Amino acid sequence: MVAAVGSAALYTDRYELTMLTAALADGTADRRCVFEVFARRLPDGRRYGVVAGTGRLLEQLADLRFDEDDVAWLQAEGVVDARTADHLRGWRFRGSVEGYPEGEVYVPGSPLLTVRGTFAEAVLLETLVLSVLNHDSAVAAAASRMTSAADGRPCLEMGSRRTHEEAAVAAARAAAVAGFSATSNLAAGRRYGIPTVGTAAHAFTLLHDDEDAAFRSQLAAQGAGTTLLVDTYDVEAAVARAVALAGPDLGAVRLDSGDLGELATQVRAQLDALGASRTRVVVTSDLDEFAVAALAAAPVDGYGVGTSLVTGSGAPTAGLVYKLVAREDASGAMRGVAKASPGKSTVAGAKRAWREMDGDAAVAEVLVVEGSAADDGAPVPGARPLQVPLVSDGVVVAGGTTGADGVRRAAARHEASRAELPAQARRLGRGEPCLPTEVRSAAPSR
Amino acid sequence: MVAAVGSAALYTDRYELTMLTAALADGTADRRCVFEVFARRLPDGRRYGVVAGTGRLLEQLADLRFDEDDVAWLQAEGVVDARTADHLRGWRFRGSVEGYPEGEVYVPGSPLLTVRGTFAEAVLLETLVLSVLNHDSAVAAAASRMTSAADGRPCLEMGSRRTHEEAAVAAARAAAVAGFSATSNLAAGRRYGIPTVGTAAHAFTLLHDDEDAAFRSQLAAQGAGTTLLVDTYDVEAAVARAVALAGPDLGAVRLDSGDLGELATQVRAQLDALGASRTRVVVTSDLDEFAVAALAAAPVDGYGVGTSLVTGSGAPTAGLVYKLVAREDASGAMRGVAKASPGKSTVAGAKRAWREMDGDAAVAEVLVVEGSAADDGAPVPGARPLQVPLVSDGVVVAGGTTGADGVRRAAARHEASRAELPAQARRLGRGEPCLPTEVRSAAPSR
Repeated sequence: MVAAVGSAALYTDRYELTMLTAALADGTADRRCVFEVFARRLPDGRRYGVVAGTGRLLEQLADLRFDEDDVAWLQAEGVVDARTADHLRGWRFRGSVEGYPEGEVYVPGSPLLTVRGTFAEAVLLETLVLSVLNHDSAVAAAASRMTSAADGRPCLEMGSRRTHEEAAVAAARAAAVAGFSATSNLAAGRRYGIPTVGTAAHAFTLLHDDEDAAFRSQLAAQGAGTTLLVDTYDVEAAVARAVALAGPDLGAVRLDSGDLGELATQVRAQLDALGASRTRVVVTSDLDEFAVAALAAAPVDGYGVGTSLVTGSGAPTAGLVYKLVAREDASGAMRGVAKASPGKSTVAGAKRAWREMDGDAAVAEVLVVEGSAADDGAPVPGARPLQVPLVSDGVVVAGGTTGADGVRRAAARHEASRAELPAQARRLGRGEPCLPTEVRSAAPSR
Repeated sequence: MVAAVGSAALYTDRYELTMLTAALADGTADRRCVFEVFARRLPDGRRYGVVAGTGRLLEQLADLRFDEDDVAWLQAEGVVDARTADHLRGWRFRGSVEGYPEGEVYVPGSPLLTVRGTFAEAVLLETLVLSVLNHDSAVAAAASRMTSAADGRPCLEMGSRRTHEEAAVAAARAAAVAGFSATSNLAAGRRYGIPTVGTAAHAFTLLHDDEDAAFRSQLAAQGAGTTLLVDTYDVEAAVARAVALAGPDLGAVRLDSGDLGELATQVRAQLDALGASRTRVVVTSDLDEFAVAALAAAPVDGYGVGTSLVTGSGAPTAGLVYKLVAREDASGAMRGVAKASPGKSTVAGAKRAWREMDGDAAVAEVLVVEGSAADDGAPVPGARPLQVPLVSDGVVVAGGTTGADGVRRAAARHEASRAELPAQARRLGRGEPCLPTEVRSAAPSR
């Protein structure tokens, strides 16, 4: 949105380009590679993760190029040599990507995204892929816990002011993927077709000579269906005036401070006594999934969530990594590779991912290592496949993944996949992942 | 960078525009207002906050406009009426802004930014101002604790992959404001002139048939001054090969896993024994300010910090708010205003901010309420003024605040301001703000 210097290809760590430079010089840049994106563990005792950001990634991937000024800058800075600079002028991603559909749930080891291409193609995607998926999946995972705790009551995303202005748009989108009904963020509304909400802040009341004047003005401009903010001075007095001015068709009142459960109960009783039984009570003010759950018994009709949503409710990044799991060797054969670093070791080989089902209930994540003895090419019995083609030879082939369509489809996918999870998945307390991950590389004993 | 729909003016919560619509209709839109940005409290037992993002904000503010498509969309969505749509077509910020210089430290109540303008001008800045300052200040506050704990050893920002791709650029910038030496993020290097670093990841070693081939290739491309990553397989063997191949002028080795303190000690001894006494030892891998502090006694020459930096080390948002503190009344006089919401009450009136000094040591934050009995127009004795003019009648008047200059100046400001703080400011454990905030509104008793 802001006219910034540089193309999106510079959303990249310097070492991707220095590795490319060395690999172009030594001839390994053309080796075919497979990189996988996965989480070693879920953050913070979480039961499941939520894939989000895939649509945003595909929107950017299609146009990812280094422009001439980028290349000149990289060469002047000594990041790349002349050969690499020439290579970057013609660079685009021509490889293939498959992955979990956006909105799908995941557990540790799930290969959310599998990137196949030459080293030169695939290495340059690492930082951008991880930035998009780590941010958006972190927000979606928190959002899913909130919509789960809200148990059908609408959740409204209102956290833009608590995060980077562009991250705010992505956060609103990720929240919608995980079941939020609307956002306060206008850019997200415009770009992704997410319904927008918002009526007035305390500043509007303070701007006027008294609360009465502010309410009258808001009602005149927005009609009786609006939401009046009633906690600037005295809640009881404000609710009385709100109904007196708007009549019993007042859309909603909003509470943004104090003990929300107690206040909601009082306000509900007062509204009912005033005949405004259809007027809704919306609460905001530092809500997270625990506060939402604690309000289950209170007469609340909607939750506005800000800070804790856009910051992932204690887990602001999903901890996804992008790891080389297989590559061509000097003879042209593909070989699984893995590092042995303590605490960070990886499993060699690309994985085919399946969700083992018992009827409508998910029971395990099954990962079959490609080319291993376990890989007989057949479907895993009683399981649904998790990976879909996203990009083929550089062309986005997944339909309906970008823009507003992508958000709608991802939200539907999330709702369906979450419904398959065992009951413990909905528990908010710390615990183990709700599905075990089984990696199969040995031949089945039959 | 990405061709996104919509202008930066849409980085805004819907309610800013619905409030504007009502205020235009009732005549209060032209009332002169003063909004202040401040933190009610510091996050998480922190001792001080760091102002960051001011330069980024000014870069965007200068060009902030609604384009015709934005306006048409807002009207079609029913966010604004025809009158407001017309108003937005000509809207730009014509008010004035003053604030703490970027890099300055702050405590609860410090008015980091003061925005003066009509309600119509100033209300539309709220979301963007808070997004920029909340994100960047959160990262800078964490970064400042890290550079403080590193006590002169270089800190390198490497967290791009753990946060939104555009937030990553802002995070690299905020880290530089708080004393980080360099970043892995190329976009940040290009936009803000921050030095970039990075040589190779584990994938580069795995791409090659063996570690030897990878090291040879990297040395051929980057020279002996490069940093070799030595923990893909066996650290001791890798260090031996690294020195054998590069010679004693090898720039550095990087450790990215395991017990970093113990490993660094072993590797340092091994390097010295091999005659590579000038080869540096750089550590990465989930560092935060506590891990950095714990490595103070280890022979470490540089810290690469990722996740915890870009996520604010437990406090991913600074919790800054944008509050109306004064506005014109019907008679044309300015009046202080404040809300009474429990736990969220505000202090009426614009504040002039001073840092009370005892020689070179800061001792308190003094806020004088404008127009109060305490406001005699004279400087506070023994104090330095904290606010500088940033924007005057819509024009950016602060020189050297944007681009690379802005980062350099902010870093210098931060270093100087942090040096004035009492010793307890450098403690990492939870505690009280390192300076008391004194709000003066009553006349001094003389």
